[in-house]
Amino acid sequence: MTDPSPFQRALPPLALTMGEPAGIGGEIAAKAWSALRQNGPPFFLIGDPGLLPGIPWQAVEGPEDVPLVFPRALPIMPLLLARPARPGFPDAANASATIDAIRQAVALTVEGRAGAVVTNPIQKATLKAAGFPYPGHTEFLADLAPGEGPPVMLLAAAGLRTVPVTIHCSLREAIERLDQALIIRIARAAAAGLRQDFGIPAPRLAVAGLNPHAGEEGTMGTEDRDIVAPAIEVLQADGIDARGPFPADTMFTPHAREGYDVALGLYHDQALIPVKTLDMAGGVNVTLGLSIVRTSPDHGTALNIAGKGIADPGSLIAALRLAAGIAQHRRHHHHATQGPS
Amino acid sequence: MTDPSPFQRALPPLALTMGEPAGIGGEIAAKAWSALRQNGPPFFLIGDPGLLPGIPWQAVEGPEDVPLVFPRALPIMPLLLARPARPGFPDAANASATIDAIRQAVALTVEGRAGAVVTNPIQKATLKAAGFPYPGHTEFLADLAPGEGPPVMLLAAAGLRTVPVTIHCSLREAIERLDQALIIRIARAAAAGLRQDFGIPAPRLAVAGLNPHAGEEGTMGTEDRDIVAPAIEVLQADGIDARGPFPADTMFTPHAREGYDVALGLYHDQALIPVKTLDMAGGVNVTLGLSIVRTSPDHGTALNIAGKGIADPGSLIAALRLAAGIAQHRRHHHHATQGPS
Repeated sequence: MTDPSPFQRALPPLALTMGEPAGIGGEIAAKAWSALRQNGPPFFLIGDPGLLPGIPWQAVEGPEDVPLVFPRALPIMPLLLARPARPGFPDAANASATIDAIRQAVALTVEGRAGAVVTNPIQKATLKAAGFPYPGHTEFLADLAPGEGPPVMLLAAAGLRTVPVTIHCSLREAIERLDQALIIRIARAAAAGLRQDFGIPAPRLAVAGLNPHAGEEGTMGTEDRDIVAPAIEVLQADGIDARGPFPADTMFTPHAREGYDVALGLYHDQALIPVKTLDMAGGVNVTLGLSIVRTSPDHGTALNIAGKGIADPGSLIAALRLAAGIAQHRRHHHHATQGPS
Repeated sequence: MTDPSPFQRALPPLALTMGEPAGIGGEIAAKAWSALRQNGPPFFLIGDPGLLPGIPWQAVEGPEDVPLVFPRALPIMPLLLARPARPGFPDAANASATIDAIRQAVALTVEGRAGAVVTNPIQKATLKAAGFPYPGHTEFLADLAPGEGPPVMLLAAAGLRTVPVTIHCSLREAIERLDQALIIRIARAAAAGLRQDFGIPAPRLAVAGLNPHAGEEGTMGTEDRDIVAPAIEVLQADGIDARGPFPADTMFTPHAREGYDVALGLYHDQALIPVKTLDMAGGVNVTLGLSIVRTSPDHGTALNIAGKGIADPGSLIAALRLAAGIAQHRRHHHHATQGPS
């Protein structure tokens, strides 16, 4: 652990997808390049150069050309749109280019020519209308680059990481779906992700309670006593440092956050509210459990402000930096696990 | 509104209850006095002087003696315990003194001799074991000093106020209880409270959605479309500036918080997570809708650290300051509504 050399080998550049062409992807890519051109991490855009507002860019044939270009122009692997993008108005005719950008980014990363995939936000309804059969990035990526476990969403902000156990379903359904097996599966994947991708050898997991005050011993809902607590016991018996269920309202205080490396929220808002309350602009979405490293900014396509020049690149910049950091950790983790080759 | 004189009349001192004698109430009262003795607001403690660790205190006969005493000693209206308190170990024999302190504080405030009631935390199970028939402070206070509407809990931290629509019930039950009438009732009480107690003439209310992304037009749960949205329409027709339902994860970002004066969360954790994530030590619990002003620190009896001298008085200090501010606003509101007497 004291030998820093594995961290110092050059990482291949990061592949950034253009995302929804009518959104803010091009604008924040340009702003992120301006912010990172000096000190990196170097990245290249896969998309239509027409989306870039007034910055120098240069077409490259592959990631290998990126290091030389990056300090003076945003390297781009061109992928032309079927129709010019109109900010704020997604066009199903451009769905296939949007999807191809993701596919290319993944392929280059699987080959080891790119260091990680960073995705700009997509407009799910537009892709769906064009026949895209996946509910979102995560499911598509899990098909293109499956890992050993299930793909798991992790939200990372300054000083807080959270993982939602259930995601895009109604609150009522999230309660119905909650069972020991699900909590255990997600917790194991989260622990493995922290070890491999964040360099935390013995991650500390804090699991939120479902009910107010974690149910106060069954007086306000029985799920915490009957489902969550037994799941945590199984995890502990498994050697995972999992604790809880904790009252969700007090587990995200600055003091409480020092006590764990990741908090498991049992439903979407329980995991996302604290992260976004603290730090919207710098929040990053990480997909654990893929064979590749993938991050994305923690916001949508922002159609309402597209083309106005006012989009905040903070979350994309954080996503690029974190992708590079994770890719380095993963290389080191493989190195440490497998020994020198 | 430009005449500041109603704000400058001296407010009667605040009545602070001792709370659970085995908890941190005496310690944080002493620390709060040290912090506020110079600049106020002046307050007095109703309780046993034996709870105060090593600060000067002086028995007073009534609130009228407080202003002269406060700069040099904590004024106390003595109310002796049946048995000496043992930090960390509540004793049902002391329940009646704990309850009497609340009763006296309310009586003095109803009479206008005290400016507001600030309550230290109580141990509900201990009071219940001693025959106290209320689930908590709020219900007891609603009996002692009822207002026109229902009592409503408001959480206030730096830069954020929230009101939970349902409170101490399981998450499943919170979903079951949710209906238009309940949302409308709580929202009206919240709006009235902000006008009367916070001096905000036209309060802006933001209502959270129940489901992820506020249900995305019914695709992830129908309650936001069928219950929450219609309730907001009724409130708007009523002249209340209510908006939503908003996706709960993005409505507490620093930028979003600028757009409203109070956020309504539909269940306990939705309202409490953002407040405590931001600012545990300075969070204050306010009961709107009583005939008197009442605040309390936003934490429990902290039995685990009682008697150790390490309790943080920040929330109690914030509760005392906010109580004085609300009492001033309320006097001004009555003055403005009723004209000079």
